[in-house]
Amino acid sequence: MNAELICVGTELLLGSIVNTNAAYLAEKCAGLGLSCYYQTVVGDNEERLAQVLKTAMERSDVVILSGGLGPTEDDLTKETAAKVCGRQMYLHEPSKKAIEDFFAGRGMEPTNNNWKQAMAPEGALILENHNGTAPGIIMEEEAAKLILLPGPPNEICPMFEESVIPYLSALTSQVICSQTVKICGVGESSAETMVKDLIDGQTNPTIATYAKTGEVHIRVTANAGDRKTAGKLIKPMVKELKARFGNHIYSTEEDTTLEKSVVDLLLANKLTVTCAESCTGGLLSGRLVNVPGISEVYKAGVITYSNKAKRRLLGVKKGTLHKYGAVSEKTAEEMAKGAALLHKADVAAAVTGIAGPDGGTEEKPVGLVYIACYVKGKVTVKQYQFSGNRGKVRESAVSAALALMRSCILEYYSKVTFGKKE
Amino acid sequence: MNAELICVGTELLLGSIVNTNAAYLAEKCAGLGLSCYYQTVVGDNEERLAQVLKTAMERSDVVILSGGLGPTEDDLTKETAAKVCGRQMYLHEPSKKAIEDFFAGRGMEPTNNNWKQAMAPEGALILENHNGTAPGIIMEEEAAKLILLPGPPNEICPMFEESVIPYLSALTSQVICSQTVKICGVGESSAETMVKDLIDGQTNPTIATYAKTGEVHIRVTANAGDRKTAGKLIKPMVKELKARFGNHIYSTEEDTTLEKSVVDLLLANKLTVTCAESCTGGLLSGRLVNVPGISEVYKAGVITYSNKAKRRLLGVKKGTLHKYGAVSEKTAEEMAKGAALLHKADVAAAVTGIAGPDGGTEEKPVGLVYIACYVKGKVTVKQYQFSGNRGKVRESAVSAALALMRSCILEYYSKVTFGKKE
Repeated sequence: MNAELICVGTELLLGSIVNTNAAYLAEKCAGLGLSCYYQTVVGDNEERLAQVLKTAMERSDVVILSGGLGPTEDDLTKETAAKVCGRQMYLHEPSKKAIEDFFAGRGMEPTNNNWKQAMAPEGALILENHNGTAPGIIMEEEAAKLILLPGPPNEICPMFEESVIPYLSALTSQVICSQTVKICGVGESSAETMVKDLIDGQTNPTIATYAKTGEVHIRVTANAGDRKTAGKLIKPMVKELKARFGNHIYSTEEDTTLEKSVVDLLLANKLTVTCAESCTGGLLSGRLVNVPGISEVYKAGVITYSNKAKRRLLGVKKGTLHKYGAVSEKTAEEMAKGAALLHKADVAAAVTGIAGPDGGTEEKPVGLVYIACYVKGKVTVKQYQFSGNRGKVRESAVSAALALMRSCILEYYSKVTFGKKE
Repeated sequence: MNAELICVGTELLLGSIVNTNAAYLAEKCAGLGLSCYYQTVVGDNEERLAQVLKTAMERSDVVILSGGLGPTEDDLTKETAAKVCGRQMYLHEPSKKAIEDFFAGRGMEPTNNNWKQAMAPEGALILENHNGTAPGIIMEEEAAKLILLPGPPNEICPMFEESVIPYLSALTSQVICSQTVKICGVGESSAETMVKDLIDGQTNPTIATYAKTGEVHIRVTANAGDRKTAGKLIKPMVKELKARFGNHIYSTEEDTTLEKSVVDLLLANKLTVTCAESCTGGLLSGRLVNVPGISEVYKAGVITYSNKAKRRLLGVKKGTLHKYGAVSEKTAEEMAKGAALLHKADVAAAVTGIAGPDGGTEEKPVGLVYIACYVKGKVTVKQYQFSGNRGKVRESAVSAALALMRSCILEYYSKVTFGKKE
């Protein structure tokens, strides 16, 4: 079964927003085992939208539209789709009630425009919107199933999870399940080489790799007659990936980010953490603090951009800065130790590097970054050479620091707890 | 004249990357005064790409393709476009030479695959690529002009600026010029209301608003017979916007970000700066540090997530935390003062708030943030109520802090330098 996406909105055509809905829907469809060959963006224009929709219905089994379900006259996705399908509109009372409740819950009054959002094409399935006033709509046509979803990401994502995934799963007698193996500390091309034989030989389950900054995700997708059988197909492949990537796998859970995996490790081992940052300038702490519940383990951190600050706040030695420079293994080490001491933390990460565009030399080029991780007295320092512009170098350094923190904590505890090494 | 975009790549169809090229190209085309009615994403598949390309050539004057110019067999945008246009391929010697030089400059050898990138359709214009090995290609067909560009953002963006903009400008006898007025500290709907009459009455120049987190950009675009005349058309509209938005305009330069405008102000007034962050956890410093040359003014900053850290590092009083709480006007004020003192900085910004999802109360709901800005002894504190998830609240707080820093520095200097107020 194949699906295609139509994203409706003048703001997309003008480039005023990036089309994150398309990436979200595409990834979800791929996860459901649907083949997606086309994505189209079109404006809030009846004639052009109708034409794009007809083309899509001719070549795809499922057409997912996002955007243009708002209350204003400009919003005409629903009206246009109904016209293309030859369906009349009627007032859908439960949607009217939901809109009333939505506004009442916020102590507000609906405007006259909002009742437009309660109109539905005859015979359509209506999907509840718990985060806004535009219900989703499914029209099952002979040629294709049309799924109309609202544009705002905080509305479309929960509606897709709650209503569209069950609908699409039920369309076939097959159940599609997937699991993502999330890997850090391994480069994209290395990871691809490590699974090339699995990709070449794939049938069911299929596997696909997704490169993120400093991470690689491998999605394993199986289809079967029921969920249990699909799960059984996925299990040995995930086991094989675990054997190949070992401790580089930080999670197989959908909603676990790299920073969350680090915070979970800290929480599990009752470790406090701090960061001392130079070139990343706060972004590493910023990412850790994005994990809800971080306050249990993260109390404070510092940004020491100047040499003086490195000396004064972290106790980095004048001689170290003089002899090795601010971007050096030794400085990173002293920063991490100093940060741990300053904040009485069990774990401390320190980052110092040359983010560019200026400041690079032949010996120390732009992109050179040292990251140190202190865990209860033991410091590990690694040297990295990142590419890309200033922003990309800094983002890569943050991901690498998280990966290093994870591996240092794991290593420390494998020694202490199980006495496996040393 | 109208243009449309075709982005080629399986990774887009799988949702593994977000289509930032489409947003970039769309914004640039809008800036050039080109009408864009369609964007299409299609995979590296000859048949489907050819079909999409033919459709685009029938309905648009300019078709811009990005991606699929790489060295591997999968990359077939150039070959497919040449076939659709009935053009033979030949070895373009200057491109071969450029590829040799590109690798030599990096101490590397080209692979056999790379020579595929030196092949060009007969009669095509070739655009140099200074950041990669895939040259851009323009084919001027009867039906439409095809512009083929590489996929990586760090290649397509400079190539578009250097080669495509001059090409598109020369296509018409008209010159299209635009200028962006960048505004902070004014909400999106307020800004739109403030320019509604201008939008309703627009002809030449046209104006369009773009909402960013904590910012609104207004682009003024004029077309005329020559650059000078277009500039003359733009000038009074920009002047009108300056009259309406005053000091809320932080820049009219294309490459000036909000953080750069703050750093420029600091540099111009020889002011050092620091930040003390709670809920933003380093993101504010992180954004300032993204500006090259920041080291002149930013030496150090702290993240004080716990109450203890606020007291110990910044000297926030125990009584203040007890009486008003960590998320309060008074705590924000003491954080800013303490940070300025700790780092001997002229300017200090402090952020404390409830980013959620937990920690909100009826009195202090999720999204409540206090931001304080200290400028040479004077502290201004503002209260904000942001919406969205944890990430969105934190991002909004960072933008608001930058806007507040800017307005406090401006206000301080308008008093000191010109004695306008007080």
